[in-house]
This record gives sequence, structure tokens and C-alpha cells, in this order.
Amino acid sequence: MTRRRVYVIGAGQSRFGDRPEGPKALFREAFEAALGSVDHPEDFVRTQIEEAWIGSLGFGGQQLGNPAALLMEHVGLRGISARRVENACASSGFAFRDAYRAVASGAIDVALAGGVEKMNDLSPDHRRYWLGVSGDTEWERLAGLTFPGVYALMADRHMHEYGTTKEHLAAVAVKNHANGALNDKAQFQKAIDLERALAAPTVCDPLGLFDCCSTTDGASAVILASEEVAKRATDRPVRVLGSGAATDHLAIHDRPSLTAIPATGKAFAEACRESERDGRTITTDDIDIAEVHDCFTIAEILAVEDLGFCAKGKGGPYTASGATARDSGDGPAVNPSGGLKAKGHPLGATGTGQIVEVFQQLRGTAGERQVRDAEVALAHNVGGSGATCTVHLFAREVA
Amino acid sequence: MTRRRVYVIGAGQSRFGDRPEGPKALFREAFEAALGSVDHPEDFVRTQIEEAWIGSLGFGGQQLGNPAALLMEHVGLRGISARRVENACASSGFAFRDAYRAVASGAIDVALAGGVEKMNDLSPDHRRYWLGVSGDTEWERLAGLTFPGVYALMADRHMHEYGTTKEHLAAVAVKNHANGALNDKAQFQKAIDLERALAAPTVCDPLGLFDCCSTTDGASAVILASEEVAKRATDRPVRVLGSGAATDHLAIHDRPSLTAIPATGKAFAEACRESERDGRTITTDDIDIAEVHDCFTIAEILAVEDLGFCAKGKGGPYTASGATARDSGDGPAVNPSGGLKAKGHPLGATGTGQIVEVFQQLRGTAGERQVRDAEVALAHNVGGSGATCTVHLFAREVA
Repeated sequence: MTRRRVYVIGAGQSRFGDRPEGPKALFREAFEAALGSVDHPEDFVRTQIEEAWIGSLGFGGQQLGNPAALLMEHVGLRGISARRVENACASSGFAFRDAYRAVASGAIDVALAGGVEKMNDLSPDHRRYWLGVSGDTEWERLAGLTFPGVYALMADRHMHEYGTTKEHLAAVAVKNHANGALNDKAQFQKAIDLERALAAPTVCDPLGLFDCCSTTDGASAVILASEEVAKRATDRPVRVLGSGAATDHLAIHDRPSLTAIPATGKAFAEACRESERDGRTITTDDIDIAEVHDCFTIAEILAVEDLGFCAKGKGGPYTASGATARDSGDGPAVNPSGGLKAKGHPLGATGTGQIVEVFQQLRGTAGERQVRDAEVALAHNVGGSGATCTVHLFAREVA
Repeated sequence: MTRRRVYVIGAGQSRFGDRPEGPKALFREAFEAALGSVDHPEDFVRTQIEEAWIGSLGFGGQQLGNPAALLMEHVGLRGISARRVENACASSGFAFRDAYRAVASGAIDVALAGGVEKMNDLSPDHRRYWLGVSGDTEWERLAGLTFPGVYALMADRHMHEYGTTKEHLAAVAVKNHANGALNDKAQFQKAIDLERALAAPTVCDPLGLFDCCSTTDGASAVILASEEVAKRATDRPVRVLGSGAATDHLAIHDRPSLTAIPATGKAFAEACRESERDGRTITTDDIDIAEVHDCFTIAEILAVEDLGFCAKGKGGPYTASGATARDSGDGPAVNPSGGLKAKGHPLGATGTGQIVEVFQQLRGTAGERQVRDAEVALAHNVGGSGATCTVHLFAREVA
């Protein structure tokens, strides 16, 4: 296959959190931010975007059919081919994958990938419904198992098998809130300490309030372009090195283990293989920054293990050691954006939201939370409790 | 761009209609039918499928998040990358487009595109909701405008501008029910006459019962492959000549005219351009068979006009003349499957369901409803009242 190089030339997001605006306005905010981040607006106009892939699970319950077309007309792109991509909380990870593929193949030169979600207007029942539908319906949701319940089972088993403690879980929250405190797009911009995390009310034992991310409102947008377009539009290109994706059983009882998400490893391996074909071999050791899917603190612990940053079972102590802190220098900076934990988790907007952070970090525009000398980054987006997953690899490229 | 040739090597569908099975079982039925249609099963196994795109709008309200992963585990493809694609009733048209792109680009060799919907278990309110969300929510659905209402406005205006009559509309229903009577997968397998169509109760003036398709249960699946795989797997390859897609305003009041669906023309033009790049120039005159999106009889009249089979405004007399009948020889055979009208319309399954018909017709396996000497065919899938649209072109290829 002749694969063309693909670059992210613009990326932006709305502030995540409790927003009065509807999904159209949120998406527009993200889209305009993405357009505004293109270095040379005189050499790039929105109408160069040829096609769009939009991730959303529930679209605030407002426009469940055809929302992609609705968003296109709202941002001045009426008429272009656009579709909604849905894989629960990995919706925009998959949207990005398909957009990347379209540019890599040469079918189009410029693509838009993005996502939007609106959770805070929903009644508690309706919100629980829209979250619950991401897990297994027949065996989990209709039996009353909520998402905190699913991840609590995984945390419990991880504690049992590997001696992981509540302090280990809390260390994820403390780190990510420290990062979120430096992110003006984050829902929670306050640092917390270990004591506060541990003293929080229990949501589903062993998970407390600070072990759970906040499902919220928000949108994100990423503009992908061919090398030719990228050269004109930007001085600081961010190259997509590879894309990986996988699926798995929806229900956790069908999987061989509660303490791993196999789709993560499969997706990462595919992304690495793709980076090889593209002339640059990436392994775990090359990763400077990893935006991982920390919908619960245990999810980040599983992610750093399944991505190979540390041995299976060691994710707790590894995180508590500070190795994944923004400026430790020991391991990759994990979730410098604050992660889902502090930045907030607008389901369908999270996958491309992670890529917004990667884009800023690799261009050196992440301000106070800038990771030094970051060259290679990863974005890891999970749907459900691991039924779907994408991993994308990125590199800073010298113009 | 180096674009590889892409072939449909297998395609199948469940019977459409009021089915007791759930979406998983329906999809499995379609998938096994698709596998069973591959000429040389000894040279093709299901595990060669590398990735899947699944169209669905509501999935029967059962598994709104991650249904693609659920279907993969149910048909023995657990683990492969899969996502749901949603663009209302054009969901699987877009699923097919993205699957085609992935194979054409060389990213993968074998892809699965399909769709599934389950409408008959829903309460009338819930069913109206899932249909309504395909139109514009803010200006149409919440104001009480239903889909029969939207298309009735279009029919009324077409009558006013061009003199189209209820008899013209009924001619579409009579033709499509005659075709459906020969299709053992159709929901309605009975021919009707003009008198019966005209005497039917009014749904929304000027549309009567026989002017409206039946939203129903069903699934469809299509297997796409590279030339190398297709050569081994089949003796009767069906080549994909081109893919076109477009979006438009959701609300009809925003469009310049009520008597055309511009997205149809745009998508068709793109598909024709793509066929040129692929070495075979296709125009309207080359089309032997057209499966078009006749959710209402007026929709087929608009489609034959917007695709250029006849002049704008002449779709009624053109259809009533018999030109688009299965064996007229005057024009393309339009909806030889029976169309949405007689075959039934399981929203997300309709787009790839049309391609099942095209596949059978171009391979000469359509039985009693076989169109003679068909070489080039088109599938036209519309979401909402024209907010989204795909057109795909296919050709019989001599092995």
C-alpha cells in the first residue's frame, strides 16, 4: 500500500464542564478553536475540509439521527460528506481513525474529526441510561450494574491479585487534578491532595468520588491534512504515525481476566506496526506523553500496564512513585491534560479531545502544563469497559 | 492517488418484516447469508474479515452504545476493529462508503459493511421518536411535523409545480409491490393494482397508506474485498465503480426547493467522477438498475429526477409510463427488489440491503425478478428528508 503521510494541522476544544450551550454551539466553539490554531490561516480556509467524521453517543438526546449533517451546516461546511461514528466513549477515537484513513489513502486531502456530548441537561435517570448503554445491556445494564460498578469489580480484583491499594488509586486522581489545575479547558481546575481523595464519599467500593471522572458537556475538533496541505498551513506539523483499533466482549464476565483490557494492547500493537510501515519504529520506550482513558482511576492503572509502561500488576506503585507525573522524567507524562478525571469526560468528545492535548504538547503550546522535550505521544480511547478501543501515535516533526 | 479495485464478493440479508428475533439474531442471519453467497467458501473464511462498519439508528433501543462490538462477538469476529456509523436512514450507505474506502486504500483487504434495525417491538410513541429524530429536531420534530408530513409537503409542492397526480404516486407503489411479490426477503410479497393504491386510507394528504413504506425489522451485510482476494473467492465479481456522498440542511424550509433533494445529485456526480478515475466513465445512460430510496412514493419520483433519468418534474409521468418497470427496456429498472415500499425499511439496514439486491442482479442470481442483461447498477440511500445521501455505482465484471 502507498500510504501518504498525514498531519494534524489544527485542533481545539470547548471548555469541558457544565455548559449552558447546546451541542451545536459547543461543537462550533471547538471547531473555531481548531481553525484558529492553524498557523497560516491565509493559506487555509474552512472550505478546504472535504469530509467529516463526528463522534457522539447521545448528542444530548436532541438530534439522534443525522447530527453530523446538522453540525456541518452550523459551522459553514454544509454539503460535505459527513457521518456520525459511535462506539460509546471511544466514538471520536474511531472518528479520528476513519478520517486519518481517508487522508492517508489519498481519497481526500483534508478531513475533520471531532466529537460532541451534552450530559448535564439530562435527568439523573436519563444520564444513567446514556452511560449504561455503553456497557453490556443484556447481562450488565438490565441487571443493574452501572459503570462505577463495572470498574469497581475490576479495581477489587486488581487489589486482590496484585495488592493494589486505595492510595494507589488516589495517586492517579492527585496527579491528574494537579495537571487539570493548569488547563483552562478542564472542568476541574483545582489540585487535590491524597487525604482529600481518600476521605471522599464512596461511590461504589473501592471507588470513591475522586476515583470517578465526571461525565459532562463538551466538544472537540481536529483537522487532518495531507503533507502538501500541511506544509503550507503550518510551521509545526504534528504527524500521525499510526492508528490501531480493536473490539472485545462487551460484558466483563465473558473476558478471561478482570485486570486487563486486551483491546488496549491489540490497538497499541497495530498502531506500532503501522508506524513501522511508515518508516519510524515506535515502541513503549519512545512514548513521551500518553493521554489515556482514565474514566476511573483504576482504568489509568490498567492502561499504563496494558500499554507496557510498567509490568502487569504494578500500575499502582508505578503511578504512586510519580513516574507518570508531568515532569518526572522517569516515565511518559500520563494525562498531562488532567485526563478524563480532571478535564471531564464528554463521552463522544473525549477521543479527539485527547488529540487536542497531544497536538498542543507536541507543538509546545501547552503553556504551564507543557511537557519538556516531548517528541512522541499517544492517545488511548476506550469505549465501555473495553469493548472498543483506539490507540493513535503522533510525532513532532521538524518543518 | 493509487486506488485499488474493490469488489463485493458476498452479500445477504434477513427477511425484512415483523420479526420476533432481536438485532443480534437478525444480523447473524444476514451475515451468514452473505458468507453463504461467496462462490468458493473453501477459499474464503470469515476470519479474513479485518474490519467492520455497521449502520444502525436505534438498534431497537437495546444497545445504543457499542453495538458494533456486540455484533462482532456474535458472528465470530470478536476483536476486529468495528464501529457503528449513523446517518439516520442512510447509516449503512455511509458504512459501505467507509468500508469501501478502507479496502480501496490498501489499509485492509477485506471489510464488512452492514446494518440492522428493530422497529416493530417499539411502542408507537417510541417508534415515532426514532423516526422523528432523523429529521430536524428544532424546527420539525418538536413542532409536530412527522416524516409522512415532510414528504407530503414535498409531494404537494411537486403536484403544484409540475402537475404530478395521485395516480403518478400510486404508479410507484404498484410497480414496487409487483417487484416485491417476487422477492422472498420482502416484507410485502403481494402485488397491488392502481385502484387499491388510490382507495387506501390517507396517512397525510396527499399521501395514502400505499405511498408510505413500512419501517420494520431487518439486517443486511456485504463483504468487500481487494482484487486479489476477490479472484480467489468468486467467479462472478461485482466491482464497486465509485462512491459519492453529501449532506444538506436537515430542515426542508432551509432548502431552496421542496421538489428536489440536492444531496442526491451531488452524491451521484461524485460517484461518477470516481468511476472516471477508475477507468470507466459512467453516466445516467449507463445505469441498468437503480435501487433508490423510496421511503415514500414521492421520494422515488424525486430520485429518478435528481439522478437524471428523466427531466425535473417529469418523474410522475415517466414512472407511470412503465419506463422503470423491471423489464421495460426503456429506462433503468428502478427498485427491482421492491424498494423500501414493498421490501420494507429497517432504517440502518436499508443502505446495504439495496446493495444485496444489486449484487444478486449483477450476478444473475435474482431469480424470478432478474433484470435481463444488467451490467451497471446504482444504489441510492437517503437519510432524513435529504440531509444525508450516498450513491454507489457497481458493475458486473467478466472474470
